Amino acid sequence: MQRYFVDPDAVKGNSITITGDDVKHIGKVMRMSSGDKVICCDSTGRSALCEIEEVSKEDVTCTVVEWMDENTELPVNVTIVQGLPKSDKLELVVQKGTELGASCFYPFKAARSVVKWDRSKSEKKLDRLRKIAKEAAEQSHRTAIPEVEAPLSLQEVIDMEPEYDLKLVAYEEEAKQGESSNLSQALHQANRGQRVLLVIGPEGGLTEEEISDLTDAGFLLCGLGPRILRTETAALYFLAAVSYHFELMR
Amino acid sequence: MQRYFVDPDAVKGNSITITGDDVKHIGKVMRMSSGDKVICCDSTGRSALCEIEEVSKEDVTCTVVEWMDENTELPVNVTIVQGLPKSDKLELVVQKGTELGASCFYPFKAARSVVKWDRSKSEKKLDRLRKIAKEAAEQSHRTAIPEVEAPLSLQEVIDMEPEYDLKLVAYEEEAKQGESSNLSQALHQANRGQRVLLVIGPEGGLTEEEISDLTDAGFLLCGLGPRILRTETAALYFLAAVSYHFELMR
Repeated sequence: MQRYFVDPDAVKGNSITITGDDVKHIGKVMRMSSGDKVICCDSTGRSALCEIEEVSKEDVTCTVVEWMDENTELPVNVTIVQGLPKSDKLELVVQKGTELGASCFYPFKAARSVVKWDRSKSEKKLDRLRKIAKEAAEQSHRTAIPEVEAPLSLQEVIDMEPEYDLKLVAYEEEAKQGESSNLSQALHQANRGQRVLLVIGPEGGLTEEEISDLTDAGFLLCGLGPRILRTETAALYFLAAVSYHFELMR
Repeated sequence: MQRYFVDPDAVKGNSITITGDDVKHIGKVMRMSSGDKVICCDSTGRSALCEIEEVSKEDVTCTVVEWMDENTELPVNVTIVQGLPKSDKLELVVQKGTELGASCFYPFKAARSVVKWDRSKSEKKLDRLRKIAKEAAEQSHRTAIPEVEAPLSLQEVIDMEPEYDLKLVAYEEEAKQGESSNLSQALHQANRGQRVLLVIGPEGGLTEEEISDLTDAGFLLCGLGPRILRTETAALYFLAAVSYHFELMR
């Protein structure tokens, strides 16, 4: 069944009003009308099976048939800090990372990031990434849309440290040297509900200075297996490992 | 250091001769010459640090400095049977799946596959996918290039069953119903060196008939977490989970 995210204030008791681009999607693309059913998620994690009352040009009004007990969010809250990569790789990270359960994405202006975002382009790029996150969240049956935030400097990444229970850095040199247990040990020590941050370098990796600044600030280096992953693959490996660890292993 | 795959018969004692497209890459792109070092992998899993003796138009001759003890292959041999997906998604599966350690890819002509490969296009497509696998294997420091084979019918997939120790089907209906332990249980029972096959449906998933034919033939259905993954994301989740299980968990 088709799923749509709505703002929490679109929900008034048992009535939900869908606005924005989704109105066109419901009316023109899906050709739905009064009596058809959709699932509405209020992006705080609540979702409801709804029946459409009326489709107008401006909005779609629905009545809640039942509130659903869905549990598709990762048991830990994962923030991906992705060194700004080339071309459209950040779109891949946000799309696949959303499917795999990430809660938040920050692009990171790393020393070796070739791509720079100027202020005028930045809002446009963020809008596009947020749209990708919303669509991927709907498609993957998530009940929350991940946040996509403006790019951070190294110092801003380090300043976020107190907000997280587990602070990790994906570091390929560790992988080359055969480091293979930091990630597993860290996940074993983490508890459900905790906040996890992973920093990933851009193409070419993090510099020695970035690594030492991060470890000085309490970040833990970890390898993601013995193969050298492209920058855009690291987040996907990590999120799948977190899911396997917390959702599938018994 | 730059890595190149060579045929096993390119290795004669301590001398290795690189031919094909890599000659141009070494001479023109990397501008390397006599005395520069490269790593040669003979695609049986052996790799050697080599010094270039001579770069000609036809070939590059190298002398082995030392045979290396690398261990970047997944401890289990994973074959991905991917329901033929739309557009360039198969390229993503092969590229990222190679980084993540798969040994072999078979496209699968599933009932809901919209894309059909005619015979004339098939060889061209396979050539392109094999090139992507080779480049991804070099980039990720693997010592073997995964195979990419011609598309299979359902019956041909089922006929491969005796060659594998563990036969799995990624099935989103299992995920929706909260099945969350089959994959973990299967990996716990698997041993290093064993052969694992995973069947993944195309967009729209496998049909009920395909599912029942596969389960009748001894395949095990497993969910890949509670979120609904796009077809091209399922292989990546699975391979990351296998890596985490066998390579990082202690």
